[in-house]
Amino acid sequence: MPDPVFHFSTPIKIRFRDLDAFGHVNNAVYFTYMEIARTDYFTHVGLLKNEWPPIFFIIAEATCQFKAPIQMDTPLAIQVRVSGLRNSSFSMDYQFLDQATGQILALGRTTQVMYDYTANRSVPLPAEWRQTLTTFEEL
Amino acid sequence: MPDPVFHFSTPIKIRFRDLDAFGHVNNAVYFTYMEIARTDYFTHVGLLKNEWPPIFFIIAEATCQFKAPIQMDTPLAIQVRVSGLRNSSFSMDYQFLDQATGQILALGRTTQVMYDYTANRSVPLPAEWRQTLTTFEEL
Amino acid sequence: MPDPVFHFSTPIKIRFRDLDAFGHVNNAVYFTYMEIARTDYFTHVGLLKNEWPPIFFIIAEATCQFKAPIQMDTPLAIQVRVSGLRNSSFSMDYQFLDQATGQILALGRTTQVMYDYTANRSVPLPAEWRQTLTTFEEL
Amino acid sequence: MPDPVFHFSTPIKIRFRDLDAFGHVNNAVYFTYMEIARTDYFTHVGLLKNEWPPIFFIIAEATCQFKAPIQMDTPLAIQVRVSGLRNSSFSMDYQFLDQATGQILALGRTTQVMYDYTANRSVPLPAEWRQTLTTFEEL
Repeated sequence: MPDPVFHFSTPIKIRFRDLDAFGHVNNAVYFTYMEIARTDYFTHVGLLKNEWPPIFFIIAEATCQFKAPIQMDTPLAIQVRVSGLRNSSFSMDYQFLDQATGQILALGRTTQVMYDYTANRSVPLPAEWRQTLTTFEEL
Repeated sequence: MPDPVFHFSTPIKIRFRDLDAFGHVNNAVYFTYMEIARTDYFTHVGLLKNEWPPIFFIIAEATCQFKAPIQMDTPLAIQVRVSGLRNSSFSMDYQFLDQATGQILALGRTTQVMYDYTANRSVPLPAEWRQTLTTFEEL
Repeated sequence: MPDPVFHFSTPIKIRFRDLDAFGHVNNAVYFTYMEIARTDYFTHVGLLKNEWPPIFFIIAEATCQFKAPIQMDTPLAIQVRVSGLRNSSFSMDYQFLDQATGQILALGRTTQVMYDYTANRSVPLPAEWRQTLTTFEEL
Repeated sequence: MPDPVFHFSTPIKIRFRDLDAFGHVNNAVYFTYMEIARTDYFTHVGLLKNEWPPIFFIIAEATCQFKAPIQMDTPLAIQVRVSGLRNSSFSMDYQFLDQATGQILALGRTTQVMYDYTANRSVPLPAEWRQTLTTFEEL
């Protein structure tokens, strides 16, 4: 991945329950952290409204590269950005940072597909989403 | 608690994710194990139908006494019983057993209240539930 | 429980992963929230040092009364206090509060036993712990 | 991915706690399922001994493609294989199957790096591992 620009970052409070028997944050929990960062991001840009279920995408693919272990006292923040818009889907990139040292602890990527839960099929990205994300990300 | 009779038991497959940084099953996970045992119990006695949400109680209280740590290779089973029926609620008891040694690893209790999700209020225990549970538990 | 005085409170950021299929925070997660509040409390009073494993108690018993459901957007805080000191154990009480309305959403209690992990047995509460907790809680 | 041959499969018992507010197994939990399948696999081939920590790899990367939602009553099994051996790392592939219909619900891949926890660095795949995995997978 080339050097991306992130316009949003959110701190993660690590829970003791996130650790596994090795004393590190368990691999699966990284995907929960990305879910938190994603939710915070969409709240921040104003696309996560107060309705429940709030947004209409499903995750089609998720990837994480684990660079260095995360521990209970790691001052963790996750940078997150929408990195690409397609017709009915978009990609998001994540950078797990040690806020004290700036070290990148993990890199993530997810692909989202806009979905109509009533019609049970994928739909084009709504115009409001495209405009908001293009503007926010300077795409 | 006096020596209870349990008519149902279910084995629990411990997941690595259930352990915490001490290498033991985390305290909160015991309540997930009770949820598994409770679900298996109601499936067994035939009160958990294929509808979703499947059953109509909410948990009003949950308690666990931790007697001995549970580890990745502990051959765990949970005995579960309905221990008391009241008008609109009932209690359940749980015994966490090491199947190899018979040692009791934990004791649990939960209180359930029958709830009408449409009317948003507690309701009396349905006659089918009372009869099924009284018969199964020889209450 | 009579009206207790709490000298410490910590906000809880609810994760989407904490919810269950009913859209509410799952019962077992309340015990994770108590674990977070307990850890924050001991960090606050200065008894949770930077060592790992940081503190030397085990949980002997945990109880929760569920008063009202917690949802994704509930502004949750947990008040926590040490409510009683005995020779080698102590009790903690928890109040789950909706910060917007002041409504009590749940009440919890845990019993902790001081434990020597090397000698594999319970030990008396260290003098530093007794003094710090007595002073902080005005016991 | 071409049509792979899997020599090992393990059933997964879905827990109510695995579901999220949409009533589906949460995305992050798929990686826990892969952890379960991986542990079962290494137990099966005899490389997961009774020591703790039992095996000496770390996860360098994990990916999952979500094809169809998994629900509480989905009869889920995960097929798992070691798909490639390199000097100090190896890859594993996963197929999430509905056992009733044969439908592929998800595809996963993880990259593992053999690691010496004492020396704190990656190490070549031990000869016993290479031989066992080559034989078992007919690589």
